[in-house]
Amino acid sequence: MRNAPVLLTPGPLTTSMRTRQAMLVDWGSWDRDFNQLTANVCEQLLAIVGASASHHCVPLQGSGTFAVEAAIGTLVPRDGKVLVLINGAYGQRLAKICQVLGRSYSVFETSEDQPTTAADVQRLLAGDPAVSHVALIHCETSTGILNPLADIAQVVQRHGKRLIIDAMSSFGALPIDAREIPFEALIAASGKCLEGVPGMGFVFAEKNALAGAQGNAHSLAMDLHDQHAYMAKTGQWRFTPPTHVVAALYEALQQYHEEGGLPARHQRYAENCKTLLQGMAAIGLRTFLPANIQAPIIVTFHAPRHPRYQFKDFYERVKAKGFILYPGKLTQVETFRVGCIGVVGADGMQVAVNAVADALREMQVLDI
Amino acid sequence: MRNAPVLLTPGPLTTSMRTRQAMLVDWGSWDRDFNQLTANVCEQLLAIVGASASHHCVPLQGSGTFAVEAAIGTLVPRDGKVLVLINGAYGQRLAKICQVLGRSYSVFETSEDQPTTAADVQRLLAGDPAVSHVALIHCETSTGILNPLADIAQVVQRHGKRLIIDAMSSFGALPIDAREIPFEALIAASGKCLEGVPGMGFVFAEKNALAGAQGNAHSLAMDLHDQHAYMAKTGQWRFTPPTHVVAALYEALQQYHEEGGLPARHQRYAENCKTLLQGMAAIGLRTFLPANIQAPIIVTFHAPRHPRYQFKDFYERVKAKGFILYPGKLTQVETFRVGCIGVVGADGMQVAVNAVADALREMQVLDI
Ligand SMILES: Cc1ncc(COP(=O)(O)O)c(C=O)c1O
Ligand SMILES: Cc1ncc(COP(=O)(O)O)c(C=O)c1O
Repeated sequence: MRNAPVLLTPGPLTTSMRTRQAMLVDWGSWDRDFNQLTANVCEQLLAIVGASASHHCVPLQGSGTFAVEAAIGTLVPRDGKVLVLINGAYGQRLAKICQVLGRSYSVFETSEDQPTTAADVQRLLAGDPAVSHVALIHCETSTGILNPLADIAQVVQRHGKRLIIDAMSSFGALPIDAREIPFEALIAASGKCLEGVPGMGFVFAEKNALAGAQGNAHSLAMDLHDQHAYMAKTGQWRFTPPTHVVAALYEALQQYHEEGGLPARHQRYAENCKTLLQGMAAIGLRTFLPANIQAPIIVTFHAPRHPRYQFKDFYERVKAKGFILYPGKLTQVETFRVGCIGVVGADGMQVAVNAVADALREMQVLDI
Repeated sequence: MRNAPVLLTPGPLTTSMRTRQAMLVDWGSWDRDFNQLTANVCEQLLAIVGASASHHCVPLQGSGTFAVEAAIGTLVPRDGKVLVLINGAYGQRLAKICQVLGRSYSVFETSEDQPTTAADVQRLLAGDPAVSHVALIHCETSTGILNPLADIAQVVQRHGKRLIIDAMSSFGALPIDAREIPFEALIAASGKCLEGVPGMGFVFAEKNALAGAQGNAHSLAMDLHDQHAYMAKTGQWRFTPPTHVVAALYEALQQYHEEGGLPARHQRYAENCKTLLQGMAAIGLRTFLPANIQAPIIVTFHAPRHPRYQFKDFYERVKAKGFILYPGKLTQVETFRVGCIGVVGADGMQVAVNAVADALREMQVLDI
């Protein structure tokens, strides 16, 4: 087996060998053993977000975007209207989903280093009573910016509106508790902070909202009402599940609990992030975001302003040293990104920083 | 690791340890190595169906149904009309997809032991000029019936209509060559006769049809035009790919070629089927379909007509002996199904037959 580089990317990320080994078994998708596995995974996921009493967990085949689209399509009625809060590419994608699905929507866009504020949402909701749902990206992975979820959720509730949260890159690492933060739906996926492999998303859908969502969906495969109803009745997925991905997620969840659950996962990522920020600052690389709005998930760095710097060259050199970085996703400024998530600790992050420094030195972009 | 039973089910099925071991590595989804893996898989898939010159292979995250829905949604224009040929549950599902997507459609349904004929299609197309597309299930997995694809394809072409083939359970095992069988789209998935793991589908879409399909789709995630355009431009999947599933499919394809490609796969499954049919006949179990329309993919058997027979009990006993069977999918008659596909040979099928006989003997349902 080739010695794979560490993925400092926001999913797929580096998983543990134990998680991957869980994929060495084939499961029958109709079999009771597999049904129990699915039910157990869903229960664990609900417990992580404190939603066992209030929400259903509806798993869905495909990538995270499929789950986001399914949540919008299923939960926003055809005459609903979504206010989409945008400060990056994933917010833009959510608006695009509303557009393609033919759901009425409006957008509120701030610049990529500017969190949406509760005051913004307050003003927007006061000004547009037609809005039924607000959609928010918790951690906008295109920069790593953290939006103030708790405050926004309060405002949305005060206005009697429903909140849909894309928590793809924060779920499992940053605290979110459904008993304190009111939401109608929260969306995440297997291959992010839970450190499973990619291949399925899941939506925590408020029970009454889901029960009332029959017939809303624009799609058969992405109808979360149907998906849930079938699973509730039979214990099975409606269509062939990615059995190995589910088994890997189960094993990843065991390790999540062994590590100490969310607080421990959060702390490890926070330390990864700190190590990264300090190390990169020491070699003169500047972050795109100020520290107070930086989530400990992924960090955007300004590319060195040097004629010899080229991302491709830089990427290949760092990869040869054992780490896969991520390109920037900003259009205005040249950046690159480094993930803090996955099976890696502060020591590993320090080695990654050293690899970055060595690569830049080889490129004669750094004089240190 | 638990000793998993052999899956005699039509996907997920039993894969080789080598295929599963390919999932022990994490891949960066943005990385060149992974892009090459995807491109290589697509090229191999196109070659299997003889469509390298005429079609694009568009892989899609999710189960096979996602790919079927994506093909209908992307390739049938909003003012198109689909004639859906039905003799089982997957044909019914395809019609349901048309309904949910709001595509105009009509159905032609024969009984579950009755293939659609080219003469039927000839008559139907002559009678309804509004039809733009014909949708056919090649092997209807709910019984195992084989529909006469080649003849129907000729009729569809003669009428200047476009054919969409759900070849989920036949692709890779039953010969289909795009140079002889005209089709606009053919749909299959990773976890069937190629003996990969489940988690992705793929659509072979005729190049001009795909090029002209921009803006048709009802969905962002399932827009095959976008999916292809992005992949053609960047080499990457539009949204996070199921990296481990793709790696497993690559490894499964290597073994497919080593075995001797389609003819060898076809022959092994045909021998599996023959062993199964002879063995089950010897213990007095009757097939639902006559031999001439039985595909060597999955066989439906009448349940023993005996008061002590219960599928659940039977299933558990056979499972304890190492084989997972599949329930019947017919509403009128009580049946069960046994798959002939996956990493298993005639010897294994004989052991499975023995397990079935032993289970029925234990249940005192068989007097042999
Ligand atoms: C915030 C956010 N939303 C949505 C997605 C889309 O997920 P996927 O790429 O799995 O479709 C991502 C992926 O990284 C994400 O970070
Ligand atoms: C003929 C046919 N079509 C569609 C499907 C649906 O595939 P999936 O269960 O992967 O969604 C299947 C699954 O067995 C099938 O056999």
